Amino acid sequence: MYVDLGNALDAEPRLTREALDRLDERVADAHDRIARGREHADHGYAALNLPDTVDPDAIRASVADFDDPAAVLTVGIGGSALGAATLAEALGADLAHYILDNVDPAHVRSLLDSLPLADTVVHVVSRSGTTAETLANFLVVREAMDRAGVDWTDRTLVTTGEDGNLRRLADRHDLPALDVPAGVPGRFSALSTVALPVAALGGADLDELLAGARAEADRLSGSLFDAPAYAYGAACYALERRGAGVNAVMPYAESLEFFAEWFAQLWAESLGKDAVGQTPARALGATDQHSQLQLYRAGPRDKLVTLVRPRERPDVPIPETDLDGLSYLGGGSLAALLDAEFEATEASLAAARCPNIRIEVDRIDERGVGELLYGMEAACVCYGELAGVETFTQPAVEWGKRAARGLLGGGDFPEAEAVGEKRRLLVE
Amino acid sequence: MYVDLGNALDAEPRLTREALDRLDERVADAHDRIARGREHADHGYAALNLPDTVDPDAIRASVADFDDPAAVLTVGIGGSALGAATLAEALGADLAHYILDNVDPAHVRSLLDSLPLADTVVHVVSRSGTTAETLANFLVVREAMDRAGVDWTDRTLVTTGEDGNLRRLADRHDLPALDVPAGVPGRFSALSTVALPVAALGGADLDELLAGARAEADRLSGSLFDAPAYAYGAACYALERRGAGVNAVMPYAESLEFFAEWFAQLWAESLGKDAVGQTPARALGATDQHSQLQLYRAGPRDKLVTLVRPRERPDVPIPETDLDGLSYLGGGSLAALLDAEFEATEASLAAARCPNIRIEVDRIDERGVGELLYGMEAACVCYGELAGVETFTQPAVEWGKRAARGLLGGGDFPEAEAVGEKRRLLVE
Repeated sequence: MYVDLGNALDAEPRLTREALDRLDERVADAHDRIARGREHADHGYAALNLPDTVDPDAIRASVADFDDPAAVLTVGIGGSALGAATLAEALGADLAHYILDNVDPAHVRSLLDSLPLADTVVHVVSRSGTTAETLANFLVVREAMDRAGVDWTDRTLVTTGEDGNLRRLADRHDLPALDVPAGVPGRFSALSTVALPVAALGGADLDELLAGARAEADRLSGSLFDAPAYAYGAACYALERRGAGVNAVMPYAESLEFFAEWFAQLWAESLGKDAVGQTPARALGATDQHSQLQLYRAGPRDKLVTLVRPRERPDVPIPETDLDGLSYLGGGSLAALLDAEFEATEASLAAARCPNIRIEVDRIDERGVGELLYGMEAACVCYGELAGVETFTQPAVEWGKRAARGLLGGGDFPEAEAVGEKRRLLVE
Repeated sequence: MYVDLGNALDAEPRLTREALDRLDERVADAHDRIARGREHADHGYAALNLPDTVDPDAIRASVADFDDPAAVLTVGIGGSALGAATLAEALGADLAHYILDNVDPAHVRSLLDSLPLADTVVHVVSRSGTTAETLANFLVVREAMDRAGVDWTDRTLVTTGEDGNLRRLADRHDLPALDVPAGVPGRFSALSTVALPVAALGGADLDELLAGARAEADRLSGSLFDAPAYAYGAACYALERRGAGVNAVMPYAESLEFFAEWFAQLWAESLGKDAVGQTPARALGATDQHSQLQLYRAGPRDKLVTLVRPRERPDVPIPETDLDGLSYLGGGSLAALLDAEFEATEASLAAARCPNIRIEVDRIDERGVGELLYGMEAACVCYGELAGVETFTQPAVEWGKRAARGLLGGGDFPEAEAVGEKRRLLVE
């Protein structure tokens, strides 16, 4: 992974090279804490050990008995779904990948109606085995398979904790089952049993993926000027402290759209606490030049834009044309056009004094994606250390979970009563 | 459209009922300006007349000769694509809808390889007829059809300006061609010849869609307390002025994902100027409760969350289960679960003093979607009037377009030289 901070300096908000030099002492301390956390496999830090602790053979074995499926359906939510979606989209796949990570009945129905259920592998992911959305969806999927005359026990793979509902279900029906990794929050679990089975089913080379992650791990060091992940995390932190409350992540690659969504979860849930934390905004180049760029250049000076691209990509030539004013396009290629747009946008942000950071990988392949995911995770942990927040918890989501459960008759929760007290000012 | 501002009041940032009352005098002035602009069909304001000025018969006629296509492909970018995508996704369709709104060669190639080209209608949309991304993609699509032995002139529909490349091409090959509406910026063009042909091809009832929009137009009045669109626009403006720089739009419906993207363009490009403007963030309920909610509740007090849902939706029952701790789900339904999550999230935001606004339509059907799109457009125009910005221009995107064109050898542009001056601080 390559991180270029050149355009992050001396813009608005203003971050100077001298400030980065001073911050580097704190990065050294953060690196020490991270290294210690990894050494003890402490909660959260254990995620940064995954390239060495995950067992790709076990993952390959868990999917080996599904013969030639046409599709794989991930049933999970949040960190239990976004990693798989990111890998499947970025690495392409020999089979179609679908997700049920929401409980919208219209969507669930239309997806189940269109899926080739007899040729679909269902991967159910829930650490606790009780996640309401995931289990409700699983119950619906299982019934749909029953109705279609498909034996769901032949088509289901489970990733869950050591005990709980899903574990017992797997034991009872002899389903292939993988353990969620110990000490790894969902949003840091892409390089584990949570998401790798989908990559394996799609034909991705898990060893290369992990090698990419390991290469990025090897680049971690006590200076942000030597470690791309820390360079990114520290610059984001320093810019947020100076007023860049928004981080717009804009990959120039369609296959990284889910990556931007995965990043948004990583950043928001890890760093959004104690009244601090940068708000991730998802964008896509070149498309969002025609949507968000006006705001980034001319709106409030509260943004960092993160531009992501591969250094090499496949190409498609643009046919010659006699259409007026388009001769400059004809005979060129889509990659040349997209890269020109990338560089033009980067320069246009710099000209408007909007801080921006360029992140590149060589290619969007197993190695590049391994580097990118690991790099962003390490960047996030570094930011969390510098900000002094509890990177690996998400206490603020519990209130709503209890309220929803109470509303559904799943127990007595005071939060459910608060729902009834909603204040109204209705305009219709 | 129903707008409930109850939870927008007395949170952090703090907006009081008294402040809304005072603002209402300015809303009356804004409404007068909007009414005058509509009366004269001034640039931009003309968009709010579309329910009366668009000709649904002409649109139906333009697609009548394509017999029974399996798919429609929109080739456009920004406002020339997002409206069609929003309508196709929200209203479902009798045929598959695809978009080429980016020039990523890997994506273009894989899409063209998978499309049934002989049964696909291509809708090319560009006001100028020279939009680089759109025309490059069109040239590639046309060649792919040629190669597949498909006569592209039988399968292509054009929406463009009165003259220019695309118009001449349509004339030369006798393609069905529609005029872009006069005085309507792309991001305000969903209810026009730009997006309605796709809805018509998909079997949507254009009359109902326009009736929904007209109903929302009829609700515009001189008081935010009587006009849902102004209630939303004015509250967003007032909250932004008080520090809510981010507006997280979170529909509780998978079929409104593109709506959130369409909204993001509308908001960012219209209001992001003169160093002001709220940054739109796209989220999706219930999924993003497991991703962004931690940040919204516990992060910086710089956010408004806009919750959107239909009051009625189709349903899917959740099968009974003997899995431990899940009996409260079994026998319920996905809609009940999703609505409980909606209300729990709304209350959890209120409990955390994060301002939030509830927007509802009766159903996600033609009428509801017409109300919603028109309502958000009128809200945006109202916000722009209150903020005193030029809602209908997007000057900040021109710099990058000139730079990209210069880089590609399409002329001599000083902006292209600035690209070469990029400052570097590379960490690898």
